[in-house]
Amino acid sequence: MKKIIVSLVCLLVFTQAWSQQALFGGNDLVSPEVKEDGTVTFRLFAPKAVRVQLTGDFLAKEKVDSPMGPVERDLVVDLQEGNDGVWTYTTGSLSPELYSYKFIVDGRDQLDPSNVYMCRDIATYTNIFIIEKEAGDKGDLYSVNKVPHGSVSKVWYESPTLKMSRRMTVYTPPGYEKGGRYPVLYLLHGAGGDEEAWATLGRASQIMDNLIAMGKAKPMIVVMTNGNTNSEAAPGEGSNGMYKPSFRGHATSKPVASMEESFPDVVNYIEKNYRTLKGKKNRAICGLSMGGGHSFSITKRYPTMFDYVGLFSAAIFMGGNNDPQKNMLEQMNEDATFGKEVAAVFAANPKLYWIAIGNTDFLFDANTNYRKYLDSKGYRYEYLETDGGHIWRNWRIYLTLFAEKIFQ
Amino acid sequence: MKKIIVSLVCLLVFTQAWSQQALFGGNDLVSPEVKEDGTVTFRLFAPKAVRVQLTGDFLAKEKVDSPMGPVERDLVVDLQEGNDGVWTYTTGSLSPELYSYKFIVDGRDQLDPSNVYMCRDIATYTNIFIIEKEAGDKGDLYSVNKVPHGSVSKVWYESPTLKMSRRMTVYTPPGYEKGGRYPVLYLLHGAGGDEEAWATLGRASQIMDNLIAMGKAKPMIVVMTNGNTNSEAAPGEGSNGMYKPSFRGHATSKPVASMEESFPDVVNYIEKNYRTLKGKKNRAICGLSMGGGHSFSITKRYPTMFDYVGLFSAAIFMGGNNDPQKNMLEQMNEDATFGKEVAAVFAANPKLYWIAIGNTDFLFDANTNYRKYLDSKGYRYEYLETDGGHIWRNWRIYLTLFAEKIFQ
Repeated sequence: MKKIIVSLVCLLVFTQAWSQQALFGGNDLVSPEVKEDGTVTFRLFAPKAVRVQLTGDFLAKEKVDSPMGPVERDLVVDLQEGNDGVWTYTTGSLSPELYSYKFIVDGRDQLDPSNVYMCRDIATYTNIFIIEKEAGDKGDLYSVNKVPHGSVSKVWYESPTLKMSRRMTVYTPPGYEKGGRYPVLYLLHGAGGDEEAWATLGRASQIMDNLIAMGKAKPMIVVMTNGNTNSEAAPGEGSNGMYKPSFRGHATSKPVASMEESFPDVVNYIEKNYRTLKGKKNRAICGLSMGGGHSFSITKRYPTMFDYVGLFSAAIFMGGNNDPQKNMLEQMNEDATFGKEVAAVFAANPKLYWIAIGNTDFLFDANTNYRKYLDSKGYRYEYLETDGGHIWRNWRIYLTLFAEKIFQ
Repeated sequence: MKKIIVSLVCLLVFTQAWSQQALFGGNDLVSPEVKEDGTVTFRLFAPKAVRVQLTGDFLAKEKVDSPMGPVERDLVVDLQEGNDGVWTYTTGSLSPELYSYKFIVDGRDQLDPSNVYMCRDIATYTNIFIIEKEAGDKGDLYSVNKVPHGSVSKVWYESPTLKMSRRMTVYTPPGYEKGGRYPVLYLLHGAGGDEEAWATLGRASQIMDNLIAMGKAKPMIVVMTNGNTNSEAAPGEGSNGMYKPSFRGHATSKPVASMEESFPDVVNYIEKNYRTLKGKKNRAICGLSMGGGHSFSITKRYPTMFDYVGLFSAAIFMGGNNDPQKNMLEQMNEDATFGKEVAAVFAANPKLYWIAIGNTDFLFDANTNYRKYLDSKGYRYEYLETDGGHIWRNWRIYLTLFAEKIFQ
């Protein structure tokens, strides 16, 4: 009987696989093949294609012209076709990291059909892979290892301020279910992102599991909110259905309140429904780009809420009616409200005010101006400048470093 | 200042979008476009393609030859090319349902770059969309509506039997965080699947949210296990990394115990860590295909554990050394252990023993034989026969109907 069923199941699978192969060129290619020496081979079966290229963030950058002037992007390289219709490309040895790539077949983007691992960034998917060389390297930190794992939940909460049910992602550390109280890190995404961004592109749960297992970070709850206050949830996860996401917001309606105004709804929900350690010293907030801007402005609005603040490639907004003709530093100095709010943040004496940015980030100057302002007032902060621009590679590094510094 | 930042952000996005468009033919196409009348238009920008086709489960079936004889598959249709390099195809009016499709460009599978919604089934992605016409139809049941939402968590538990940390998906109903105790449905996936299958392809959390909101199902906890006992978690979510999933299991190592042997570890974890209502009358189990087989055999092994049993297109195994030459019904009648185990299940008088299968399912005969056996013994069960085969469309329907029948 068992044998009959197994045969039947095999038949089903075989015929499905066969018809796919015969029709669509499905195959058993391995791609990407990550080798011991850190080189990676990509393969695509495309016998009818004239040209197969790939681009990925492990390749060098090139400058290309655009209507707005020269812009930087990842190099595009050609794959070579073999006699079997399989195109291949092999990289040099790559350092430990999570990388992303896509094929371009006769001018059109194509995901790698041999690689089921991909991430969505706004409306675009790219395939991903990880290079891991030894314990504790970046690739290792971003991987699922044989360590205790926290739980990751998609949770709905009521926001009285936004008059809406909203979704967030909550990481509870390994052992949470056994009891105890934990500090909370609020981890905010950038424009175009949502409550899934840090968990997917950001590898937040893997980073936290691994840092906690190594004793480098304290066990903590990590709350990944949705910063688009006109939307309930990530694309496809809210009641506005399976629409095409875009950079400029996730719903057509105007929000009834801002992220800053509505943020206490999140903190109240978390502190009511999770076993949290209370008070400023047990709360941290950080975010990337727009989420760095949110962290900056939420902290200004509630200066005694967080003892740890992380601005990752932050979009530093001043709010109010600013004069675009003026120098940003000059405006900061002239804006009395801004001055008072920032003064209140530092008067509350945060244990860590951390600013990190890549040296080719388009927000580099804005952050430099803000640092000049802080310096002129003698406010204490820590600063990290890395290579690269406004990219997830940097934000994963910043999260790792920030998580190690808080609640210690 | 705000304006400057907005301009900078726009510049960044614009130049990224521009370089993508110029290079790769990215565009602002809407695809699929679901219209009021239920027709759907698909669009793909592919000016260099010679032939663009699509296949999807909303199309008629056709028989094609295979090395194993004729097999049934979804029709493949041609898109028409416009002057702008955009290929289009419009369906007739479709009935409410969740549908899946993919493009085939010059013989190669291609996901729809305008549709970010897709599901993975083993190693293959297809795009999805939902047709929804009115409240309560299938499309509506599978959609996220403005109703209270349960939480969906990826939870790790220790399995002493399997000597492994393992991952499962747990749905807690709306209001769970406010208190109370709940019955538990254990919901099992098929071969090639994992703890994510019911939550993605199965739309389990949407179905439960909607049925509970309509008062058609009782609020319950739904536990979606991983039935591959040699693996910790879904592909990419365990410590064996980002490997290519295949139908025949998710890891190379031999499992130390079976799903049946290890299942009490799951129940013990859930009843210890969640506020559950205890006892047989508050436990249900169901599953599809292999998971239907697991539900069948777990129930035989622990006849007093569940009051509700659902076999969806179940792979009915008898276990032991069966003679493949023999008729299945004959074997069931001759196998004393099988007879004793099934007798114990029905002696425990389950409130519902529910068998459902499609009339073209390759497991139809096995289920017919099992029903003949049950009939011959006078054991009470309910039976549903639907159109169609071994497909998710049927399993979503079965879950909906089963969830309405349990804990009432």
